[in-house]
Amino acid sequence: MQNTPLILASGSKIRRQILQNAGLDFIVLPPDVDEDALKNQHKGKTIAHLARLLAKAKAAAIKERPNALILASDQILSFNDRAFDKAKSMAQAKTRLAQMAGKHHHLISATVLMQNGRVLWSHGAKCRLDMRKISEAALDDYLAHVGPDVLHSVGCYELEGRGAQLFDKVQGDYFTILGLPLLALMKELRKIGYLSS
Amino acid sequence: MQNTPLILASGSKIRRQILQNAGLDFIVLPPDVDEDALKNQHKGKTIAHLARLLAKAKAAAIKERPNALILASDQILSFNDRAFDKAKSMAQAKTRLAQMAGKHHHLISATVLMQNGRVLWSHGAKCRLDMRKISEAALDDYLAHVGPDVLHSVGCYELEGRGAQLFDKVQGDYFTILGLPLLALMKELRKIGYLSS
Repeated sequence: MQNTPLILASGSKIRRQILQNAGLDFIVLPPDVDEDALKNQHKGKTIAHLARLLAKAKAAAIKERPNALILASDQILSFNDRAFDKAKSMAQAKTRLAQMAGKHHHLISATVLMQNGRVLWSHGAKCRLDMRKISEAALDDYLAHVGPDVLHSVGCYELEGRGAQLFDKVQGDYFTILGLPLLALMKELRKIGYLSS
Repeated sequence: MQNTPLILASGSKIRRQILQNAGLDFIVLPPDVDEDALKNQHKGKTIAHLARLLAKAKAAAIKERPNALILASDQILSFNDRAFDKAKSMAQAKTRLAQMAGKHHHLISATVLMQNGRVLWSHGAKCRLDMRKISEAALDDYLAHVGPDVLHSVGCYELEGRGAQLFDKVQGDYFTILGLPLLALMKELRKIGYLSS
């Protein structure tokens, strides 16, 4: 499989960075998926189910790439048993972070590897993050520094950046928290012969 | 303490990167410490003791900086109950990696924060890394890609780079594995008023 292209079906900068840092060869093709419509269609499903469904939909949206390995992932934040999307405005981000401060939440992730419309491999994970108590001044300072980039992450933070300042403790695989279960993925890529073992 | 300078007493690129990514202000001053001499002086001590001793020696080597917060860290690899230093040559790196492949090892870390010659805070950690079985061809490929940079890391790998390809599983705080217990450190920096809470 070493000549099969690996396609990252994602527009996420950090997912691309994770694969690049590990030295993998791949192509980036952001999928065109109406995530909100899919979520509405499947209301009432568990968050883990929804994340898997979205990851599969993203991979399946990359058409006409026979034999290519298509990698897609989704991550949903679960706080007080509610699923959270990305914030839509800085004001919403501030409200959201103020709610989560001093409490824990989970990141529910799903990742799939598809080939010719068939799921070769799927992976699910649940990581726990404990956000520290944050004063309003510190929150304003954080938002001023990070700016509209907070609207690109599901939790209004990037743990690999200044977002680390918001946490007391994180539990779970770091790469998965960032957006891709890198070690598990590479294990699978070795298993199917895409990476040499 | 917000006007007190924070000094990173380290020549390590990744330690600098971790603090930078999190948005901290600091100065880098690599310390002049004869690590081998210190290790020889303290033969027979536990690895954790040795790591703490080295971290303290590095911080203490930064002189004439009244009131500055001096941060230093040390990391020793423990494999089969033996402490490992950085490899001295590519050949030694290859032998070392071949020995560790398919087995687990630990990274024993110590970090201190000193001010006016007094230890304000110290932190110790032990993380477990499970290296996968690696064929000789894959090992040669890894070494060819990474080059002499493998000689800069205690385990001949950087988990944040291509070194991730060598692992099945890592257990423990990611930042600590890389070289600094970032979350615990920032908690302390907030406690002493260097970072706003």
